[in-house]
Amino acid sequence: MFAHVRPAAARLRPLNLSLICFKPRFNSTGIGSQLGPRRAVVYNENGNPAEVARVVSSTDPVLLRDEDVLVRFLAAPINPSDLNVIEGKYPMRPEPIHEFGASSDGPGIFVGGHEGVAVVVKTGPLVDGPPTKPERRFRVGDWVLMRKPQTGTWTNWKVVPMRELRRIDRTKKTESKVTEAFAATLMVNSLTSLGLMTDISPIPGWHSYILQNGANSAVGQAIIQTAKQMGIKTINFVRDRPDYPQLKQYLMDLGADHVFTYDELLDRSFKKTFESLRTPPVKACRHAFNCIGGPTVAAMAALLDKNGHLISYGGMSKQPIILPVGLQIFKNLTAHGYWHSHTWEMIGQKEQDNRIARMVAWKELGRWKDPEHEELVLKGDDEEATGILREGLKRVQEGNIRKKVLIKWASPKDS
Amino acid sequence: MFAHVRPAAARLRPLNLSLICFKPRFNSTGIGSQLGPRRAVVYNENGNPAEVARVVSSTDPVLLRDEDVLVRFLAAPINPSDLNVIEGKYPMRPEPIHEFGASSDGPGIFVGGHEGVAVVVKTGPLVDGPPTKPERRFRVGDWVLMRKPQTGTWTNWKVVPMRELRRIDRTKKTESKVTEAFAATLMVNSLTSLGLMTDISPIPGWHSYILQNGANSAVGQAIIQTAKQMGIKTINFVRDRPDYPQLKQYLMDLGADHVFTYDELLDRSFKKTFESLRTPPVKACRHAFNCIGGPTVAAMAALLDKNGHLISYGGMSKQPIILPVGLQIFKNLTAHGYWHSHTWEMIGQKEQDNRIARMVAWKELGRWKDPEHEELVLKGDDEEATGILREGLKRVQEGNIRKKVLIKWASPKDS
Repeated sequence: MFAHVRPAAARLRPLNLSLICFKPRFNSTGIGSQLGPRRAVVYNENGNPAEVARVVSSTDPVLLRDEDVLVRFLAAPINPSDLNVIEGKYPMRPEPIHEFGASSDGPGIFVGGHEGVAVVVKTGPLVDGPPTKPERRFRVGDWVLMRKPQTGTWTNWKVVPMRELRRIDRTKKTESKVTEAFAATLMVNSLTSLGLMTDISPIPGWHSYILQNGANSAVGQAIIQTAKQMGIKTINFVRDRPDYPQLKQYLMDLGADHVFTYDELLDRSFKKTFESLRTPPVKACRHAFNCIGGPTVAAMAALLDKNGHLISYGGMSKQPIILPVGLQIFKNLTAHGYWHSHTWEMIGQKEQDNRIARMVAWKELGRWKDPEHEELVLKGDDEEATGILREGLKRVQEGNIRKKVLIKWASPKDS
Repeated sequence: MFAHVRPAAARLRPLNLSLICFKPRFNSTGIGSQLGPRRAVVYNENGNPAEVARVVSSTDPVLLRDEDVLVRFLAAPINPSDLNVIEGKYPMRPEPIHEFGASSDGPGIFVGGHEGVAVVVKTGPLVDGPPTKPERRFRVGDWVLMRKPQTGTWTNWKVVPMRELRRIDRTKKTESKVTEAFAATLMVNSLTSLGLMTDISPIPGWHSYILQNGANSAVGQAIIQTAKQMGIKTINFVRDRPDYPQLKQYLMDLGADHVFTYDELLDRSFKKTFESLRTPPVKACRHAFNCIGGPTVAAMAALLDKNGHLISYGGMSKQPIILPVGLQIFKNLTAHGYWHSHTWEMIGQKEQDNRIARMVAWKELGRWKDPEHEELVLKGDDEEATGILREGLKRVQEGNIRKKVLIKWASPKDS
């Protein structure tokens, strides 16, 4: 199912020739020197990402079938869940592949990365032909995202069946405000925010308040921006820190209505402060988002109106949720979890496309800021690139990077 | 709204004579010496039940209107929530009344008790007349429950508008298996069990398992019996105690499928034990009921299959619910509260009647055991009766009574 780039050995298997009318075989030099050898971040088994992940290269020829698309990755983020996948702690894992030197009769290897943005470099003859389903047509230069989860986006280029791609319809390519950083991080962080407000317990929009802890997390920032677009007010909580005034200003600039520290939230007097924020017409506050765990969760839950929803999408402190029973019984508080990857699959491709189009529209209108990010450019031979990679992974693992780290690949001549 | 027994002072207000065609006034001696003076457990203000509640008597005359019913209480339980109401810790409270010596221009007093079973002694002329709505006809000797919450059931007799009464349709009155203890405790404990299995996240019945802590509580015992009637298997957890073997046997006799101690539940090896209990055909275990709080909650939640529901209806340990975030996110565990009194109002009177009829049918078929109970007979003058009452309240407050305590009133000649 997963071997859309077939290794040499796989080609020995019988193929369904009725489906394969055109199958040019090429290697990197056949596409033009700008692509160079195929490269990827791989790991053989689960473990500490900064120890088990490495960069490998391959010059094996690959097939481009009738309905395949050759894409070059522009940027792919390192998300915390990507690290959990490599650690084997995430309840989803990629399929092993038998490329990049992994023998076809062995267990295979895994390529890291769940999301990323790529550009179309070459298409099979049925991809760019007369349109039957316009959404299935891809042209050189189109920007694309991966429809399937965990397909290994930490790679410089790959061949993908067109049905597994989704184009980002930038209105005017040269003037588009859609950036690589925006597109590369759209699927996980940005769309989690829209899912949180839509899927479990839809928030009615105007006249609603959201509470959230970890408001400076990547999803937290996306929640602030999405809420602003939807006319929902946010009351945001973050850990106190030396640069708190700057962080608060940054979140306010993103669109936060209020920002407080956990110390303020946990203070007895906060209930009064909170009530003073709610201005007429009477605003409902029925949703709290938790990505931290620990004492701030109960404090937020206690502020919710009757019939509230506490929705956890992360537990960065590794502390559990602690809830007084009375909040559940007498205030009818419901506590749910939200697992974006899972819910995303459930909503179906049409709704997925709608949500992506909605976000892209906000971006094109200049209403959405890129996540703060830095590039991790993998260059040099495999050993040098592996060193750069592991250094980057380590920094993400250590946390405390407010910026999103994006993997990029040096072009062959820079490499 | 609440003054269905009007005090002398209230009769001075103008009455809608078109509605009141027949209004015999009587006092206790008018009804027959078997009723005696009206008596009730009352309190003037919230506080420790064993200190603020007292027995009072009244010989003031009362009105029996066209659509009123005079009922004599057979038994009314002391539930933990009744104590919380007196303490002022329960988010529902009775309306104050101006009887039993409380002056009509003062703040009034409260009569304790939420549920209980009474027998019809006398009816107004439109109650027993030609039937229009059969469910509204009451005859002398009928057993009735109160439709309205917190109406003050800790009283020996009272006049109630017939629309506030609900008859228990015992099939053959003389041979009925419906006991006073069953009927008096039906509304709170027994019907909570049916609500838990029906209202928040309905349990599909056959091939389902329920986990519950506090299985020896009154509701816990009702859950065991209701589940058995519905073909749902129960795995029950209780605190270890000197008479654990007897308690376990008692719960098994009620219909429990399995009983374990919290120590067993909290042991690492329990996961294996649990899996060994689930026999083919594959049984889903998606519901855990919590009335305790504390560490057993997370342990039960961890045993649930994906998409499970943790439903709290009590917090007897006064400890909160503690849940790992991962259970919520990756196993899609939803944690709800269940407040029976509130949900009961929401389901409407028809469904209420259906559920009561269903329970009564189980009882008539000999499939439902009475709760273990003891009678607290209030007798003697008000001072003596108050002493008996407070002693009983104290024992319930101290907990550790497995038996339900039922308030009964001595007949005038025994008193």
